[in-house]
Amino acid sequence: MVALWCCFCCAAERFPHHWIHIGQIGKFLRLARAAGCRDVVFIGALVRPSLWQVHPDFKGLRVLPRAIAAYRGGDNHLLSGMGKLLEDEGLHLVGAHEVAPEILMPEGTLGRVQPSERDRADVGLGLDYLHAAGRFDIGQAVVVAGRHVLAVEAAEGTDAMLGRVAEMRANGRVRAPRGTGVLVKAPKPAQDRRFDLPSIGPRTIEGAGRAGLAGIAVVAGSTIVAEFEQLVTAADRANVFVLGVPSGSEQ
Amino acid sequence: MVALWCCFCCAAERFPHHWIHIGQIGKFLRLARAAGCRDVVFIGALVRPSLWQVHPDFKGLRVLPRAIAAYRGGDNHLLSGMGKLLEDEGLHLVGAHEVAPEILMPEGTLGRVQPSERDRADVGLGLDYLHAAGRFDIGQAVVVAGRHVLAVEAAEGTDAMLGRVAEMRANGRVRAPRGTGVLVKAPKPAQDRRFDLPSIGPRTIEGAGRAGLAGIAVVAGSTIVAEFEQLVTAADRANVFVLGVPSGSEQ
Repeated sequence: MVALWCCFCCAAERFPHHWIHIGQIGKFLRLARAAGCRDVVFIGALVRPSLWQVHPDFKGLRVLPRAIAAYRGGDNHLLSGMGKLLEDEGLHLVGAHEVAPEILMPEGTLGRVQPSERDRADVGLGLDYLHAAGRFDIGQAVVVAGRHVLAVEAAEGTDAMLGRVAEMRANGRVRAPRGTGVLVKAPKPAQDRRFDLPSIGPRTIEGAGRAGLAGIAVVAGSTIVAEFEQLVTAADRANVFVLGVPSGSEQ
Repeated sequence: MVALWCCFCCAAERFPHHWIHIGQIGKFLRLARAAGCRDVVFIGALVRPSLWQVHPDFKGLRVLPRAIAAYRGGDNHLLSGMGKLLEDEGLHLVGAHEVAPEILMPEGTLGRVQPSERDRADVGLGLDYLHAAGRFDIGQAVVVAGRHVLAVEAAEGTDAMLGRVAEMRANGRVRAPRGTGVLVKAPKPAQDRRFDLPSIGPRTIEGAGRAGLAGIAVVAGSTIVAEFEQLVTAADRANVFVLGVPSGSEQ
């Protein structure tokens, strides 16, 4: 039995689950132990809670100073701090890619659309940027067209960034023709792969299509593909390529 | 007499001027020479034109291959390519800071609001990020709160980025309390200071206020302050600090 620590879990409808408040560490540990869990998997994006939204139980109160120390700093810092806290309680943290390797992006393209040489140059520039910016623990995504960076993701998330590119194309701020440009996502260089791996799903494809992009590039083996078949169908329909670059290309 | 190459020039109402289409290099040179201009100053932000919007005259057609080569690549590349082209015609390119040093941001604070130690730590992180990302010729601005990067500017511009931060605060995606966080602007590390220096004006202050930021930090001597007095009044009214960090702090 694996305990899932999950913010917005699509699996919740189908599997036995419990909802807990942020900060109910004691309740989480009690439920996990009662179900015989020894492993924990973190799933989903992190929206940093306000400290006022945390409702700690007794155990939560005891670990509050450590949680606050983890909260200060970037997302990686927060996640690894919370991870260590659970490991000190005897739980073993594993990555989603370890329990379900089939959800990871393979090398090469999904669907029938292929990137052009120009697209590959944009992918290269995007990977370089993400590598250089990675130590700042910012976002994991960037949009590049014609070797020009159009948008950088930070707290707003990938979908909002793609919406911005669509808007800039519509209002003429971005003049690169439709059908050019790529969304590039990559894990941060020092990222603990047990937390918050970049992910793509049909919604990402639709966002890229609305933004008029040629395609999406992610790092093979380090990116979660949600709803694989729907994603491939959406990519072919939107005429968008989906490319898995070999791990190490981002360095 | 100085020729101003200016996209949206507030001075146009007050001074003798001519409007020309993008690409009318021949007309520009003729007008500049007729007025006895030897120096050219580039003013204003660059919105990259679509090549279809360029209406070249005869001279413009002759330099089109060089203009297209300059267009490919980042903004610096485009601006310095256009600059070289004018210099080959015997005009001397000078920076706005050379003809009007009084429009540059001084060291220290404007207005009565002072940054806290926490704000200064956010400023330091923002400058580090801009230095690291500078070689990608992206934007020149970033928003940092609690040592966490909230937003990075690329093609959308500073005002749109501040609007995004205000929106993320309103919809709960950003939980850092109002009155924390800074906007940091800096020239790109390899930037030719004759083009597109970062600038701030009363609108930047209002945007920072709506985004709930504590203040704005820019590099002294490398930032244009538009409408100085209105900016100071706006900063005091919005309770926002305006800090000029010494040049070199961004490295």
